[in-house]
Amino acid sequence: MSAAYSVLITGANRGIGLELVRQITQTHRELTKVFACCRDPHGAKAQELRALAEKYPDIIMVLQMDVADPKSIHQAAVQVGSVVGNAGLNLIINNAAVMFRCSVLESTAEQLTSCFNTNVVGILLVIQEFLPYLRAAAKAHGKAGMSCCKAAVINVSTLGSSIQLTNDRYDEFKLVPYRTSKAALNMLSMCASLELQKDEVLCVLLHPGWVRTDMGGPNGEMDVKESVEAMLKVMKSMNEKDTGALLDYRGRNIPW
Amino acid sequence: MSAAYSVLITGANRGIGLELVRQITQTHRELTKVFACCRDPHGAKAQELRALAEKYPDIIMVLQMDVADPKSIHQAAVQVGSVVGNAGLNLIINNAAVMFRCSVLESTAEQLTSCFNTNVVGILLVIQEFLPYLRAAAKAHGKAGMSCCKAAVINVSTLGSSIQLTNDRYDEFKLVPYRTSKAALNMLSMCASLELQKDEVLCVLLHPGWVRTDMGGPNGEMDVKESVEAMLKVMKSMNEKDTGALLDYRGRNIPW
Ligand SMILES: NC(=O)c1ccc[n+]([C@@H]2O[C@H](COP(=O)([O-])OP(=O)(O)OC[C@H]3O[C@@H](n4cnc5c(N)ncnc54)[C@H](OP(=O)(O)O)[C@@H]3O)[C@@H](O)[C@H]2O)c1
Ligand SMILES: NC(=O)c1ccc[n+]([C@@H]2O[C@H](COP(=O)([O-])OP(=O)(O)OC[C@H]3O[C@@H](n4cnc5c(N)ncnc54)[C@H](OP(=O)(O)O)[C@@H]3O)[C@@H](O)[C@H]2O)c1
Repeated sequence: MSAAYSVLITGANRGIGLELVRQITQTHRELTKVFACCRDPHGAKAQELRALAEKYPDIIMVLQMDVADPKSIHQAAVQVGSVVGNAGLNLIINNAAVMFRCSVLESTAEQLTSCFNTNVVGILLVIQEFLPYLRAAAKAHGKAGMSCCKAAVINVSTLGSSIQLTNDRYDEFKLVPYRTSKAALNMLSMCASLELQKDEVLCVLLHPGWVRTDMGGPNGEMDVKESVEAMLKVMKSMNEKDTGALLDYRGRNIPW
Repeated sequence: MSAAYSVLITGANRGIGLELVRQITQTHRELTKVFACCRDPHGAKAQELRALAEKYPDIIMVLQMDVADPKSIHQAAVQVGSVVGNAGLNLIINNAAVMFRCSVLESTAEQLTSCFNTNVVGILLVIQEFLPYLRAAAKAHGKAGMSCCKAAVINVSTLGSSIQLTNDRYDEFKLVPYRTSKAALNMLSMCASLELQKDEVLCVLLHPGWVRTDMGGPNGEMDVKESVEAMLKVMKSMNEKDTGALLDYRGRNIPW
């Protein structure tokens, strides 16, 4: 088993993504690397992330990645590859997403396409570009089975992706472009889990809870600290039995 | 109850769409109108549809509609509106779709986007443009409840949209861009069913079976005749209890 442990997080400059960087860094062990990806590493919205990275210069590496821009995903992959080498990349958390609050009758083609592009196509491309490093990590790890310590893709989904549960509180959470994209993401993740099984790369969908971020709004049921603590606990407990699943922050299955 | 009965079918020039036009026309009653929409009504691929329309000039009206082109959807809606008047439009069958056969690792951004655009965004726009006529039909019908005779949107989905069943025969049917788009369509349809309930417009997803068409290929389990007969039988039996559901050609629920 390799001593190195590396994690990549998309949308790492604010909200749940930033808190993931913070907590993973604070509980780091030797040779940990956290690749904190965001659209604009030098912009005002990445100030907190930059400050955090300056505090942990050996651990956090801030990378430019707009998941709606294939070239930037590729460039980030090249950079990560040159850092991780044969140890590979252990964990990708596909966290970046966009949302629009609108009904079927209000939604525009542009809103549907924008959500799909960022929340689904972006994740497809991240998986494709970084798979060689995940495979390398699975190999370097050596032991059989699947885990987030070995090689894993965690796709951040939502309770709102559940077609079965859509009727619950639909009037409050119409979010049609977002819901359609996350249902598509669930399918993509299920397909990816089946394809990555032979490489022993775990692939799980995770719902972070309703969280007070820019996206979740002030009425959310928990703050980012509580959500990310719970998410990391669930991730720690995941094994090959979970691959393909949609779990919430307490580790419970959400129906499709 | 109005004597008029009108149906609109997208992708009506071949495959299941063409057979829907044929069977609905052949079992027509007085004042039936079938709006057979296709991308290129004057092209070689619409020859069979044109011949059929010439045989039933009072029933079949061939309209140009590329569901990937919002303007053409709008123009078709204007034409339909001018024909149906206060009787409205009773039934829309969103049948047009595209498919690509590829795995997560093989899929391109363009393939995902193309499937999503035709198979999901196209249906959103059709629902938005034609909703006034569906509402008019529901009103003209008069009786309470929901049915395909009154006012309904049937979205043609697929067994391959089921996230839960993806593991069954995945190696044979990877179809990742198609599956992700149809899972997104299922969510869109569920949301639409909730929003259209108050207008008493039925909204149901229907899986036609594995059918020998250009899309289904020569190994399909049935021909278009058998599939469409079964679909029309299921549609006839639908009522308000079915709104939001995903049914197969035998009327059985498919899990999400
Ligand atoms: N908050 C909730 O209640 C809740 C509930 C269920 C699921 N979730 C999921 O949790 C994840 C994080 O949500 P959040 O609440 O932290 O959202 P947030 O506060 O709105 O943050 C979204 C993050 O995604 C980034 N992002 C958006 N588009 C991007 C792109 N094209 N490329 C790269 N980064 C991009 C944003 O970067 P910029 O600063 O550059 O915009 C930001 O860092 C999302 O997947 C969301 O769907 C959240
Ligand atoms: N066949 C099966 O086994 C099977 C199984 C499950 C579900 N389905 C579903 O059944 C429906 C019909 O499938 P099929 O087997 O009849 O497929 P098909 O033989 O490939 O025919 C597809 C139809 O969709 C039309 N179309 C594609 N893109 C369009 C666009 N942008 N605008 C307007 N029309 C467009 C095509 O028109 P052009 O001629 O202009 O290309 C054609 O008329 C689809 O929704 C499919 O997903 C089929």
